[in-house]
Amino acid sequence: MVSKTELKYIQSLCHKKQRRQDNNFIAEGAKIIDEIIKSKYKITKIYATQEWIEKFNTNNLSVTEVTPTEMERMSCLQNPGNVLAIVEKNNNDDLLPNNQLNLVLDGIQDPGNLGTIIRIADWFGVENIFCSNDTVGLYNQKVIQSSMGSFVRVNMWYGNIETILKDSKIPVYGAVLNGKSMYELSSLSACFLVIGNEGNGIRNHILPYIKHPITIPKKGGAESLNAAIATGILLSRLVG
Amino acid sequence: MVSKTELKYIQSLCHKKQRRQDNNFIAEGAKIIDEIIKSKYKITKIYATQEWIEKFNTNNLSVTEVTPTEMERMSCLQNPGNVLAIVEKNNNDDLLPNNQLNLVLDGIQDPGNLGTIIRIADWFGVENIFCSNDTVGLYNQKVIQSSMGSFVRVNMWYGNIETILKDSKIPVYGAVLNGKSMYELSSLSACFLVIGNEGNGIRNHILPYIKHPITIPKKGGAESLNAAIATGILLSRLVG
Repeated sequence: MVSKTELKYIQSLCHKKQRRQDNNFIAEGAKIIDEIIKSKYKITKIYATQEWIEKFNTNNLSVTEVTPTEMERMSCLQNPGNVLAIVEKNNNDDLLPNNQLNLVLDGIQDPGNLGTIIRIADWFGVENIFCSNDTVGLYNQKVIQSSMGSFVRVNMWYGNIETILKDSKIPVYGAVLNGKSMYELSSLSACFLVIGNEGNGIRNHILPYIKHPITIPKKGGAESLNAAIATGILLSRLVG
Repeated sequence: MVSKTELKYIQSLCHKKQRRQDNNFIAEGAKIIDEIIKSKYKITKIYATQEWIEKFNTNNLSVTEVTPTEMERMSCLQNPGNVLAIVEKNNNDDLLPNNQLNLVLDGIQDPGNLGTIIRIADWFGVENIFCSNDTVGLYNQKVIQSSMGSFVRVNMWYGNIETILKDSKIPVYGAVLNGKSMYELSSLSACFLVIGNEGNGIRNHILPYIKHPITIPKKGGAESLNAAIATGILLSRLVG
């Protein structure tokens, strides 16, 4: 059973403004909750249907049982799952680049794209993503859901990416339309790879930091590639 | 000005059932309409706001001018553009594999994924996509919109893909989780590349035709990659 106050609180966390003020976010679905349970993230509260409790609650976590109807009311998803958790945010303000490929995102706007990029980073073992302040927030529910739980293994930093790139001791690569062909490069060790905004690419004030502009050569007629697709292709080449 | 009958007809084309019976589909937005005008597709009718007519109607096409409010009523999009067209479907029932890489889709369900795959195919110059009957339809509006107009340059065939793969004279590659590393392959000439369904991959009845199972090696923790991302990565390796 979920109280009216709890319901109101959960629904409020679907909104950016409330998420900013609060130290919690919402995650839904058995796969993602399973990833969170096994991770460094701290779960504040779990709500689940009887089905989930019987099947998955092997850790004897304290869970509030709800009916499927209550779950529908709580959920921000079109197709609610059988579990929802309130989870404490993680702070990565002190994140430093490591000696592998470090991803840098310059203004990614679409939550689905960011979630997919996190999932790709996780697939290729990229541990750090540095995001410009105006990149869509990690704790946006669509980001969390489309990352398929991969956000628990990737360190996400938000801030002024110029401060990161300015005095960088490692080479700075960036995805542009008229750079060096990615086929001329092989695996990279310590570096930054900058991916630009969906519509405008890497913005003008960031371009001077890109000492190694790289391109996915085009053979056909499409004008551009989606930002997440470009990230996947470049990572498969540069960390594969 | 758009009549009530026209409005009703346009809205009906947002529904799969009506689209199946009708020989037309809907496309929206300046970029996509521009691609269609330059393509082999035949436009049945264009509706546009004054803004689009003044800026883009350089071909002196017959256009019905509508107000932004009328456009909002006609549009199936959350953010309607300033132009919408009714376009005749194209029939590719006789499509045959060419002597390049031919993509085969086994049950892709998500319209955004299919649109993105078409855009990727177009970027890498892949001309043919053979889709299983249960792959989401090309003329689904989300497919058309997310392909960003690339569908005009890619030949899409729908049918029983077993008939295509069964007696194939060209090698059949397929994306699976436990195949040969894609890094052991270089550019391929004439072949099929099969991409499976988002949740289940290539289905059991298709697997026997996959003589060359290939894999994007994983370094991190993610369980899988999105189908469109996998397509992009494999094409960048195999036709790049």
